[in-house]
Amino acid sequence: MNSPYILIVGAGGVGAFFGSALARQGARVAVVCRSDYEVVKRDGYSIRSPLLGDHTFRPHDVFNAASQCTVAPDYVILTSKVLPGADRAALLRPAVHPQTVILLIQNGIDIEPQIAAAFPDNELLSALAFVAIGRGEPGSVNHQSSGTLTMGRFPSGITPAAQRIAALFEASGVGCKLVENVVGARWQKAAWNTTFNPLSILGGVLDTGQMLRTEDNQAFVRQIMEEVCNVAAAAGHPQPPQLIPNMLQATRAMPAYKTSMAQDYEHHRPMEIEAILGNVVRAARKLEIGTPALDAIYAIAKMVEAARG
Amino acid sequence: MNSPYILIVGAGGVGAFFGSALARQGARVAVVCRSDYEVVKRDGYSIRSPLLGDHTFRPHDVFNAASQCTVAPDYVILTSKVLPGADRAALLRPAVHPQTVILLIQNGIDIEPQIAAAFPDNELLSALAFVAIGRGEPGSVNHQSSGTLTMGRFPSGITPAAQRIAALFEASGVGCKLVENVVGARWQKAAWNTTFNPLSILGGVLDTGQMLRTEDNQAFVRQIMEEVCNVAAAAGHPQPPQLIPNMLQATRAMPAYKTSMAQDYEHHRPMEIEAILGNVVRAARKLEIGTPALDAIYAIAKMVEAARG
Repeated sequence: MNSPYILIVGAGGVGAFFGSALARQGARVAVVCRSDYEVVKRDGYSIRSPLLGDHTFRPHDVFNAASQCTVAPDYVILTSKVLPGADRAALLRPAVHPQTVILLIQNGIDIEPQIAAAFPDNELLSALAFVAIGRGEPGSVNHQSSGTLTMGRFPSGITPAAQRIAALFEASGVGCKLVENVVGARWQKAAWNTTFNPLSILGGVLDTGQMLRTEDNQAFVRQIMEEVCNVAAAAGHPQPPQLIPNMLQATRAMPAYKTSMAQDYEHHRPMEIEAILGNVVRAARKLEIGTPALDAIYAIAKMVEAARG
Repeated sequence: MNSPYILIVGAGGVGAFFGSALARQGARVAVVCRSDYEVVKRDGYSIRSPLLGDHTFRPHDVFNAASQCTVAPDYVILTSKVLPGADRAALLRPAVHPQTVILLIQNGIDIEPQIAAAFPDNELLSALAFVAIGRGEPGSVNHQSSGTLTMGRFPSGITPAAQRIAALFEASGVGCKLVENVVGARWQKAAWNTTFNPLSILGGVLDTGQMLRTEDNQAFVRQIMEEVCNVAAAAGHPQPPQLIPNMLQATRAMPAYKTSMAQDYEHHRPMEIEAILGNVVRAARKLEIGTPALDAIYAIAKMVEAARG
């Protein structure tokens, strides 16, 4: 397999960015996109990136549904948002063949089991993206900073298929760290994501600088992170004691950042409240871990979401 | 004392409305106002009211500080917001003489002790206003609905001075219910105020309809109200079991309402977070009552406030 065929499903900014990186290494990268289909089919993606340079990415094929893909892909990468009521397995199914490896590049906790159950005979990889990408005009992608992946087999392990695609990412300049315990890595990211994403929509859009402005604010952020880490530990993924101070310090050191959920809120797009927050709260209930701050934040986030209609 | 001299300090919309009601009954009603001073001095207040009719209220005297009042008032009524750092006693002091009765028409919990300590020899009355008043141009008052007071001596009792001013309110058409236990009444109002006011600023301004939109939303609102009632009970002011269902039902039945805190938030005015919410949380800590939802809401409200700078 010298030139793997890779189908990216739900190719918004994140899918286009990582897809373009793979295409530069010779992979045949096709995309399934809906809202930007006409533009991308005609012109490709216009990508601005400090890491990959400003360039146009012309996918090998452009589809508006996975069923249009007549090749059996080596990899199917799902980069859509994880939203209640969206049947992710159905999105992928027409393109998943016996040898196809499925890779999820998605946010949230407990997002793999549904896909694992739908495709029990396929290898499933799970990845966390650390990347800031803004959305602009249809077909245009504004990569702002970072651009690395943490990846592993679900539920654990590192496989040849993971190593193969990781090598392509690494060669392109996009870092890709392979980990034995990707679920633990997902919990680690949740300590940040589950804290800052929901908080950022609860006050008419707050950035990280605003959320950490006072000592009281910082103490509250620390409490939320501790609750997430308590759930992670009960779920079998204890986090290192330095995680929270390190994350707080790193977040305060970086320029004020508007989370993906805040961006979705501002642009009246669906928000990943369930994947990022609801699933953590549900895990806490199942494991009988108290999460009073998360519970309240979840309730208020749902109120905000319902108010948008 | 056929024509009592009543000085209203901090006479915004609430002060002007209740002051006008007293003036119609023959009281000499003077006001201390700052931001609207010039307009009110020249033209009086232009009041639109379904209860009192549309009319102009020309105060007996218009001051921009209590120190300008050379008469010894029979009553001083404080209608300002209760904000940290604002010395309410200092606002009143120049106008408080040995026989002056002080009446607070203000929001919040535990707002009397500071005034009682500052004026230990004066009679102190405390009142809750149930009234919706919007602010417009300087000197104009838009009374929207309701317009009643619940009043009593602090810390308890009903006095002749309370009866006298209550009779003036009643005669004017503004209901004024006298209660033996005004602190208990304040806790009862807090079940509503401490719930809906802070929540209404946590999602880019939510009205009561939005806060009660789904079953989940309603369950959360109920939880917050229960926490307030638990603190009230521990403070010696148990509320009737039907309070919460009745309040929820009444709130759902009324047109969607934008709380005073939401209005302050929208207009970038200081918010009564400490008087309405912070004091309840502090009472809970002192009484060792758990209030997980209130704690989180308080922390987020402070984050929102700090973010406004």
